[in-house]
Amino acid sequence: MIKVSVLYPNNEGSKFDMDYYCKKHIPMVQQKLGTACKRVEVDEGVGGPTPGSRPTYAAMGHLYFDSVPAFQAAFAPHTNEIMGDIPNYTNVQPIIQVSELKS
Amino acid sequence: MIKVSVLYPNNEGSKFDMDYYCKKHIPMVQQKLGTACKRVEVDEGVGGPTPGSRPTYAAMGHLYFDSVPAFQAAFAPHTNEIMGDIPNYTNVQPIIQVSELKS
Repeated sequence: MIKVSVLYPNNEGSKFDMDYYCKKHIPMVQQKLGTACKRVEVDEGVGGPTPGSRPTYAAMGHLYFDSVPAFQAAFAPHTNEIMGDIPNYTNVQPIIQVSELKS
Repeated sequence: MIKVSVLYPNNEGSKFDMDYYCKKHIPMVQQKLGTACKRVEVDEGVGGPTPGSRPTYAAMGHLYFDSVPAFQAAFAPHTNEIMGDIPNYTNVQPIIQVSELKS
């Protein structure tokens, strides 16, 4: 199984609307990707390694697929609509990474 | 539920021994943390947003706990042993972040 992680940096002056992300963006993404997307996990950054320290990422969204081709086939037809929604909830450029699940 | 994510940057010249991490480090961490650690997920970075691009992180380890205090209580007695094992599998300084699971 593979995981597409979208990491939103928590910079000085950055904004992230978790409410919009959870209630509008993620449901729209799931609807577009259909059954190819097996699972979604949304993390809200609450801290760094020591109590009171700042989290590096305001949020992380993880989307699970059976394979990279399955992800690409599901995502490609909707790239513009999905990426075009990003400015509606954040002013940062996310880091996108594809990983293989080891456990 | 909360998640402690440990992100290993994939820099020029950085090394990450996934075999050691999965077979030695993670089992040791799970043994030390005991039942407070509900689940572990290990991701191996395979690419960036476009085909052939480099993943930002060589690996990510995610540890799930019921709460931040539950994590702190389980981790504190073993901090030195767990952190001291890091140089056995990588030469990079990981980014550590605590997140709250939204979904």
